[in-house]
Amino acid sequence: MTDTTAHDERYMRMALDEARRAADEDEVPIGAVIVAADRVVAKAHNLTERLCDVTAHAEMQAITAASTALGGKYLSGCTLYVTVEPCVMCAGALAWAQISRIVYATPDPKRGFTREAPACLHPRTRLDSGCLADKASTLIRDFFKHKRQ
Amino acid sequence: MTDTTAHDERYMRMALDEARRAADEDEVPIGAVIVAADRVVAKAHNLTERLCDVTAHAEMQAITAASTALGGKYLSGCTLYVTVEPCVMCAGALAWAQISRIVYATPDPKRGFTREAPACLHPRTRLDSGCLADKASTLIRDFFKHKRQ
Repeated sequence: MTDTTAHDERYMRMALDEARRAADEDEVPIGAVIVAADRVVAKAHNLTERLCDVTAHAEMQAITAASTALGGKYLSGCTLYVTVEPCVMCAGALAWAQISRIVYATPDPKRGFTREAPACLHPRTRLDSGCLADKASTLIRDFFKHKRQ
Repeated sequence: MTDTTAHDERYMRMALDEARRAADEDEVPIGAVIVAADRVVAKAHNLTERLCDVTAHAEMQAITAASTALGGKYLSGCTLYVTVEPCVMCAGALAWAQISRIVYATPDPKRGFTREAPACLHPRTRLDSGCLADKASTLIRDFFKHKRQ
């Protein structure tokens, strides 16, 4: 676990709530929250099945929503809380957005960006992980276990 | 230049038309077209400024539009024509879509995916480049030259 706090846990719990909403809709349970100056400016969950669109990851929708809420396409000063390590697509988007910090709960060894594009984030983006990791990984594991039954 | 044909040029000209539309709207001039079984299923151009959204690249919008047109989130059997080498975000999205082929006109040495995530595409995706490269790079060069004036 890297440097996360009780403050981070508060927002990660919101992201986990979003992930549970995804599971309820039979979507892979991943949720995301974006916070600016201690204010939540976006909440989203994975909607790739409902929207029939591979780009509808939680992070992508959160970026779009935060940009709308803040009236600017750059998210410097913002922190993204996401329940699973972002994929290459989402990390690339977060790089364009120049987000200040990313906190993810559990790693994704297969599709996480740190495997295929470890240097793709903006140089000023701080990356932390491990916050409520067990809860996030249990959600994912239970979802796929149920799917296989 | 890799293996592109006169057939490819036809679709790349459409993508260049889209890029010109972007330039007319004061957007970085990048255009994209997706073709399935010799039928155009999506045309799009960069709209990051108008939509105030870093995720609104030509390729991302084309993926969403093609998925809607085809009624499925996987784009196997499709070819994407894009005027500039996709970035990491767009390449990651094209990987999720399992697109069969990508043809780009001109490379992007700074933000192109082949620099930061060369292995991120789906293993079955074929990548070609160089088709009408001069026209695509002239569009980009002229756009930024005009911006600096």
